[in-house]
Amino acid sequence: MNSFGRIFRISIFGESHGESAGIVIDGCPAGLPLTIDDFLPDLERRKGGTQKGTTPRKEEDLPIFKSGIFNNTTTGAPITILFENKNTRSADYEKLRAVPRPGHADFVARKKFGGFEDYRGSGHFSGRLTVALVAAGVVAKKLLEQTSPHPDSHRDPLQRRGAYEESTIKVSATILEIGGQTDLDKGLQLAIDNKDSIGGIIECRATGLPVALGEPFFDSVESVLSHIVFAIPAVRGIEFGTGFAAAKMFGSQHNDAIENMQGKTTTNHAGGIVGGLTNGNELVFRIAIKPTSSTPKEQTTLNWETEQVETVSVKGRHDLCIALRVPVILEAVTAIVIADMLMLEQHIKRILP
Amino acid sequence: MNSFGRIFRISIFGESHGESAGIVIDGCPAGLPLTIDDFLPDLERRKGGTQKGTTPRKEEDLPIFKSGIFNNTTTGAPITILFENKNTRSADYEKLRAVPRPGHADFVARKKFGGFEDYRGSGHFSGRLTVALVAAGVVAKKLLEQTSPHPDSHRDPLQRRGAYEESTIKVSATILEIGGQTDLDKGLQLAIDNKDSIGGIIECRATGLPVALGEPFFDSVESVLSHIVFAIPAVRGIEFGTGFAAAKMFGSQHNDAIENMQGKTTTNHAGGIVGGLTNGNELVFRIAIKPTSSTPKEQTTLNWETEQVETVSVKGRHDLCIALRVPVILEAVTAIVIADMLMLEQHIKRILP
Amino acid sequence: MNSFGRIFRISIFGESHGESAGIVIDGCPAGLPLTIDDFLPDLERRKGGTQKGTTPRKEEDLPIFKSGIFNNTTTGAPITILFENKNTRSADYEKLRAVPRPGHADFVARKKFGGFEDYRGSGHFSGRLTVALVAAGVVAKKLLEQTSPHPDSHRDPLQRRGAYEESTIKVSATILEIGGQTDLDKGLQLAIDNKDSIGGIIECRATGLPVALGEPFFDSVESVLSHIVFAIPAVRGIEFGTGFAAAKMFGSQHNDAIENMQGKTTTNHAGGIVGGLTNGNELVFRIAIKPTSSTPKEQTTLNWETEQVETVSVKGRHDLCIALRVPVILEAVTAIVIADMLMLEQHIKRILP
Amino acid sequence: MNSFGRIFRISIFGESHGESAGIVIDGCPAGLPLTIDDFLPDLERRKGGTQKGTTPRKEEDLPIFKSGIFNNTTTGAPITILFENKNTRSADYEKLRAVPRPGHADFVARKKFGGFEDYRGSGHFSGRLTVALVAAGVVAKKLLEQTSPHPDSHRDPLQRRGAYEESTIKVSATILEIGGQTDLDKGLQLAIDNKDSIGGIIECRATGLPVALGEPFFDSVESVLSHIVFAIPAVRGIEFGTGFAAAKMFGSQHNDAIENMQGKTTTNHAGGIVGGLTNGNELVFRIAIKPTSSTPKEQTTLNWETEQVETVSVKGRHDLCIALRVPVILEAVTAIVIADMLMLEQHIKRILP
Repeated sequence: MNSFGRIFRISIFGESHGESAGIVIDGCPAGLPLTIDDFLPDLERRKGGTQKGTTPRKEEDLPIFKSGIFNNTTTGAPITILFENKNTRSADYEKLRAVPRPGHADFVARKKFGGFEDYRGSGHFSGRLTVALVAAGVVAKKLLEQTSPHPDSHRDPLQRRGAYEESTIKVSATILEIGGQTDLDKGLQLAIDNKDSIGGIIECRATGLPVALGEPFFDSVESVLSHIVFAIPAVRGIEFGTGFAAAKMFGSQHNDAIENMQGKTTTNHAGGIVGGLTNGNELVFRIAIKPTSSTPKEQTTLNWETEQVETVSVKGRHDLCIALRVPVILEAVTAIVIADMLMLEQHIKRILP
Repeated sequence: MNSFGRIFRISIFGESHGESAGIVIDGCPAGLPLTIDDFLPDLERRKGGTQKGTTPRKEEDLPIFKSGIFNNTTTGAPITILFENKNTRSADYEKLRAVPRPGHADFVARKKFGGFEDYRGSGHFSGRLTVALVAAGVVAKKLLEQTSPHPDSHRDPLQRRGAYEESTIKVSATILEIGGQTDLDKGLQLAIDNKDSIGGIIECRATGLPVALGEPFFDSVESVLSHIVFAIPAVRGIEFGTGFAAAKMFGSQHNDAIENMQGKTTTNHAGGIVGGLTNGNELVFRIAIKPTSSTPKEQTTLNWETEQVETVSVKGRHDLCIALRVPVILEAVTAIVIADMLMLEQHIKRILP
Repeated sequence: MNSFGRIFRISIFGESHGESAGIVIDGCPAGLPLTIDDFLPDLERRKGGTQKGTTPRKEEDLPIFKSGIFNNTTTGAPITILFENKNTRSADYEKLRAVPRPGHADFVARKKFGGFEDYRGSGHFSGRLTVALVAAGVVAKKLLEQTSPHPDSHRDPLQRRGAYEESTIKVSATILEIGGQTDLDKGLQLAIDNKDSIGGIIECRATGLPVALGEPFFDSVESVLSHIVFAIPAVRGIEFGTGFAAAKMFGSQHNDAIENMQGKTTTNHAGGIVGGLTNGNELVFRIAIKPTSSTPKEQTTLNWETEQVETVSVKGRHDLCIALRVPVILEAVTAIVIADMLMLEQHIKRILP
Repeated sequence: MNSFGRIFRISIFGESHGESAGIVIDGCPAGLPLTIDDFLPDLERRKGGTQKGTTPRKEEDLPIFKSGIFNNTTTGAPITILFENKNTRSADYEKLRAVPRPGHADFVARKKFGGFEDYRGSGHFSGRLTVALVAAGVVAKKLLEQTSPHPDSHRDPLQRRGAYEESTIKVSATILEIGGQTDLDKGLQLAIDNKDSIGGIIECRATGLPVALGEPFFDSVESVLSHIVFAIPAVRGIEFGTGFAAAKMFGSQHNDAIENMQGKTTTNHAGGIVGGLTNGNELVFRIAIKPTSSTPKEQTTLNWETEQVETVSVKGRHDLCIALRVPVILEAVTAIVIADMLMLEQHIKRILP
């Protein structure tokens, strides 16, 4: 399914070299101010061409509002945001039609859609669609900005006593390492020197979340976040808090001791989630990004026509390290999930402010 | 939400020390033979009390069919399977009511449900509910057994040429390490010696899957699998194929070369998934299990009544290493997801055989 | 699918002559008091055997709580309510196995489930399952009782000026006519005299609803209500407000003039719904119930074995006029929909009170 | 929610006088030929301006494909179809801002969205959006054309014996009466003579449907059809088969006798649906359309600013009888539902042909 979310719900569409990529956002509250300028910084962060190691393909990436916005404000009706594809060089891909590129969706897409798929530049499977995720993320982030989850007197007698600090929810993702190097330039240079692509690790943190977001049983915070995170191309793993390291720890080491009535813990090995719900501490998780499948290096694959193995060298314009572009996308999907959880828990009203 | 799945859809309910734990399975095809005996081996694998390091609590764990089965066969109507709770010692937990146990859902559950939650033995958040997942997993596994995905002539002209090997889908999970030790006894002894609980890593593999299971965009195989996997208590991370190691690799190292028309690759770094879809190779993923939150060691936490930090020692009957019981649960949720994907892709008919 | 609802979500299961009929209610707020006594009056209203024209089959119909209730209060976890089938006489139906009863689901059920269906007493298609709907309706009604939708200052500056009257939401359904007679006894006597079954019309009204329940576009109040109403066996039509009569009216006759700031209109031809949303007036709709398919009269049908048309006379215990039992079921599904809409619009908190 | 469907799933967006109206169709099989020409006849049928009694507003109504179509064929990815709004005269509506038009969504929309709604020409509540439904209907109809549901040997031993006639599924809707007149011109003249708007009744029929479409319990054919039908503005009632007349009938009159192994019945009072499933006979249902709310007649309403009742006369360009434009819309939603049910029952493959 190309839709995700329960109240704040997105439907994505588009192709790499087709007419457009875009998104419909259903369930966004009415009254949220939105202008094109709100989108530009995050779209710029995602865009290739400015960083060493990113693709020279440059799209203008101007969001076009097609519905749901009136007088620069959300109306409560579905918001449609479109990005037109202009700067495409499909010819690069036509040549590769007979040879599925290793690591790409070419082979499985053809199996799934019987040859009817738009194969140009990975078509619907392209990272190009993340431009639409970033746009939805901008809407979600603006929503979070306007939200100050505060004590709900119905919730818990304890909350009435302890004072919530006025908090704004903030989501930020950073690259922890590239090619195993915490010095990112060093990691990138490794790829350049080897004329190869390379992977990386990104960490995402969210502060200011109220306690008890997330739903039992299947819609734990980890479940919903990982669901959307794995929709980002190239993600191979996700871990929350201490993550895989927890498997080597003793319980007495791993448990976080609660130290105040707002749920603050002395340590944060849990990464802000216990029992599938936020526990009042910082949300922390990391994802692994595989090296870009398109590498300048020669590789072998199967030719669909000759049914023979042959050598292929992927030309086109590609990122050496796709991880460089992922942080803003990771922030986007995280903000989308948080917005949805806040609405489910009624921390965000259906009309703002 | 306590429901999961699109066609083969499960709804879970129950509490640790309440009346029962159970599951409703909607969308299971008619005509699948099912008897209580089918459930016993997997329920036995999950049960505590027989392994060093697992809880001495023993439930009879006999599945009671409440609907959807007639003449030992599924009817196509929703299947309800109930497990009654008999062997509960709630008094152990009553004493702890005022002190949320570190690492447990006590604190967040109370915040979410305002004190109305069934707090006995983690209530609805308890690992007890995994007995219902295992039961649904047995139904899913039986479904997979009866399924031989084979070439669909509509799919791809290429498939007509290449012969599918007749394959039965098999799912199996094993413990890779405990407390960082691949010698599991050694890892367990570490916990026993330290009078502490300990974590572990489980690997799950599935063979015989047809190419192109999974849906673009949000319902990639990784997305849907990780969604349900994180519903299993104590899971802290998941990685597919090379997983986090991929972040350190070059593209030319990581890409798997396709070597035949069925999608077989020379290596399987992708863990059987490309572009979010199965690619005809073995599905491989690993999860990290944190150490059991209930450890014999003394810990500090906050007393809800006095609002003071105090020392707590969790009595009750608990597993030293919850990872020991997870493999059969992990197989269950994996089989559930595969069954659902096979039905979406029409590899399983709505009436069997 | 055997599930319905978005936040307040029900999953139904069971058969007429199987183990049980039951329902899982997910998303019910925590803190709602619930005892078995709350269910008895509505279950009694639905039960056959006490009214002229209803079936002599008598089930004890005692709800058994299987999850989600603790200390006579909802916990926020899924509520499972079970009804065991005791008073079944399957032999009545075994004889009819080869001859699908006219007007019943026997034929289509066998086509859909290939002969694996539980055919005894219509199995999963039986009106028996409405006992579970009525139980869920009791929970929904109690929820409505505790809800006083009141002015939300975020909503509309106009609301701040106009004072809402404190209102409790009430749902009630009554039989308007049987066999075309508004004198119900007369209509019923018609059936008795003719040794035949007979149909009827039921009207449902709900007062105290806040303005603007319902969602654009597909989830209009009429859409969601009619969806669940047609799940009640024997319903053949539904109309809101003036309904079919509206097709004969002029616009100036049909339009309701708004006369105060709370949306009160001079007339209520719209039945309380405009643009798919509640408009602050009484919700009014009517449904048509066909005559009970099981009639004492002889009928012809096809024998599945001989493939010959033959005469059948349906014995068993049946209602002459199923419409007599529908009002409490209609109230139930209406209350369920209203509860769900109130939660979506955040008029009901996730923790009560 | 602005989405509908389980496998063949649509998401609608847009406003009357905003940028556009459009639809995303998710889950459409790959390989369906689609060109703009396919859409023109149905769009023409829906368009105003050519019939006596329809609005003189004329939109070009050219569908713009934004995704999911490649080489004039569906790719399996979401299909986005856009209609740009050009011929808008918003000024007509600006004047009416303070006075909610009787029978329109103005009042409830403002209550729901707090004044942030796009109020021009009913905004998101406008009948303008049905252009997108008609477009999705064209896709669904083409899908049905390519589908010949035929005996599935897994289904029923009986089917193997009886031969299915090769059938193509056809959906067609016609106006039965306007203003109570079966002579439509007469009914229309009634409105013209009275300088008023008028209602009507539409009937929809579908032939060629396989037996056993529809799902128990909540997703009966009537449930799903009525759900989407009430999304069409101005629908006030729906009835299947004999509908409301059934309430006056005896069981022996109403029951349809099965006369052959394909489920053919001697009469069709059930309208082709028994037990919520199609029974192999023609699907028949009728809907009631209220008179257009915009009538040339003067009416009273409340002024939001003065809070006084005042007289309003709705100018703008409007249909005297909106029922005239509904048949093609009704066909569209019916075809959409049938396509979805066929996919769920696996009568339509995920790759065509």
